[in-house]
Amino acid sequence: MLENQSTTTLENIGEFGLIDLLTSSIKIHHSSTQKGVGDDAAVIDHGNLKTLISTDLLLEGIHFDLSYFPLKHLGYKAITSNLSDIYAMNAMPKQVTVSIGISSKFTLEAVEELYAGMLFACNRYEVDLVGGDTSSSKQGLVISVTAIGEAEADDIVYRNGAKPGDLLCVTGDLGAAYTGFQLLEREKRVYLANPEIQPDLEGKDYIIERQLKPEARKDIVLMLKHLNIKPTSMIDISDGLSSEIFHLCANAKTGMYLYEDKIPIDPTSYNMARELDIDPTLTALSGGEDYELLFTIAQSEYEKIKDNADITVIGYVCEEKEGIHMISKSGNKHPLKAQGWKAF
Amino acid sequence: MLENQSTTTLENIGEFGLIDLLTSSIKIHHSSTQKGVGDDAAVIDHGNLKTLISTDLLLEGIHFDLSYFPLKHLGYKAITSNLSDIYAMNAMPKQVTVSIGISSKFTLEAVEELYAGMLFACNRYEVDLVGGDTSSSKQGLVISVTAIGEAEADDIVYRNGAKPGDLLCVTGDLGAAYTGFQLLEREKRVYLANPEIQPDLEGKDYIIERQLKPEARKDIVLMLKHLNIKPTSMIDISDGLSSEIFHLCANAKTGMYLYEDKIPIDPTSYNMARELDIDPTLTALSGGEDYELLFTIAQSEYEKIKDNADITVIGYVCEEKEGIHMISKSGNKHPLKAQGWKAF
Repeated sequence: MLENQSTTTLENIGEFGLIDLLTSSIKIHHSSTQKGVGDDAAVIDHGNLKTLISTDLLLEGIHFDLSYFPLKHLGYKAITSNLSDIYAMNAMPKQVTVSIGISSKFTLEAVEELYAGMLFACNRYEVDLVGGDTSSSKQGLVISVTAIGEAEADDIVYRNGAKPGDLLCVTGDLGAAYTGFQLLEREKRVYLANPEIQPDLEGKDYIIERQLKPEARKDIVLMLKHLNIKPTSMIDISDGLSSEIFHLCANAKTGMYLYEDKIPIDPTSYNMARELDIDPTLTALSGGEDYELLFTIAQSEYEKIKDNADITVIGYVCEEKEGIHMISKSGNKHPLKAQGWKAF
Repeated sequence: MLENQSTTTLENIGEFGLIDLLTSSIKIHHSSTQKGVGDDAAVIDHGNLKTLISTDLLLEGIHFDLSYFPLKHLGYKAITSNLSDIYAMNAMPKQVTVSIGISSKFTLEAVEELYAGMLFACNRYEVDLVGGDTSSSKQGLVISVTAIGEAEADDIVYRNGAKPGDLLCVTGDLGAAYTGFQLLEREKRVYLANPEIQPDLEGKDYIIERQLKPEARKDIVLMLKHLNIKPTSMIDISDGLSSEIFHLCANAKTGMYLYEDKIPIDPTSYNMARELDIDPTLTALSGGEDYELLFTIAQSEYEKIKDNADITVIGYVCEEKEGIHMISKSGNKHPLKAQGWKAF
């Protein structure tokens, strides 16, 4: 590596700082590029329908640990986590491309397992695998997925549309992917210390599945359409609730009030967090990988969703100057911190 | 890694065998998926204009060696090599997404160099960088680029349209990226053996640039349009002339005659091959990474291209049963072998 005399470490600048810096000098050449970097997906104008593009990179040792991640599940998750970005634009993914870098130590059967999981997800979500690249890798397994979606121009929901007074909603429950991850890590440590002890995963299926085989919320996008609700802003929860709230607020130039007691947490996940001595709220705020949808709606839509088991109202949008706060279970107001995944 | 009792190594099946096997069970769900795996790019129907998608994965230690590959050049090549796939469909790339996995040992300035090269290519080829993903990597540098292009339906050229009697044409010259690579590898070995010896790259600029900063043939796509020529089939040369000829023949179910003495090889590259004791013809047949376009045209188009300095007729398409042969400089007929890049 060449290094200049004056250098900056990536730890110092952080992932979001790095992205901001790198993307600040991008020039746009085509009027068809309707939305570039800065949302869940790019938006390209192809006449009546808009094309949405989203891409993710999954690296062994960073995003997954093959010692407990079955390849079929990993393939499934590689697809669903990417589709989630397209659903987060209120759009429908239609195609994916998949590139993989694999060590020559992998067997053909192992690669087939990985692909079987990918194709299982493609069939379940009705997306077409249309291309990719295959390479050997000298290091670990590398998976890069690009999802291509479409939507009518008027249906697309960006990150920047929240207005003061809007309700903040989240789908499903939060934190379980993280407690599932912590459980798997704990059992791995136990196993490494003593291979004769069997992993204790009894009754923990839900949180393990949330980590190993997450679903994308296609059903929510269809339901919102059915309910005739167009969110004012939307994002998927990949880095954690807290970080995603900051994205919505930064894009819309608003503040937010989040109610701790409203955050939906599954009992299995809650109990696991307690057992692991982690604050259950923190698993939702900072855990990430839930792939639930976080969105804002006008208050006038409240009646349509108030009895919906899949959607929970967890806060509301306020003016930017009021800041971003969480009202704790005890009723105290705390500034929320953006504690996303640390990339470096 | 889980392994079944009966396993197959990836070396045994090879890259193309692996791709065939993995893609054999793909189901297509959408009529908008006009062309999936099996060409330079996927084709998606978005009304009047078709969208083309192509993706490549570049891994440190496999596709590049940072000890002599300047990051700015690497960024440039990551973009142009991917755009080349879209031009090979006779289409125009309009957008790219870029995902990178970087070690925390990288400095910010190093990442900026990489991006500067990417943006330089984007500006030169007039494509918009619209998204991507940034991650830390525990191993080497990982770069994944997806290019999105567009074309009118009638303009798209696939790999499968060659007809017996068609002329086989190639742009530019071949083999120089490979001789440039071999030269850089030799000088690296010399340097490692004795760091006081300066690399001897005098007068070798052309072949080094072909390796480190390859261009994609946008100019050819524009010229073909200007000449009112639509190739019957086209592919870009990433793996080597021989391998690409096999792709065109397999897709069109034809044979081919290739004339060794017609293969365009630059004198610098020719002399370097001789100096390195490599058959210059082999650098063209198997070297790869030239990113020139290989295409077939009807004989009736010959007059339009015969005096064109950028295009060389190197053979012609024959019936499948005649096979794929090279006529050597001495006039002998040899079966051609597909000696592409060995992925595993």
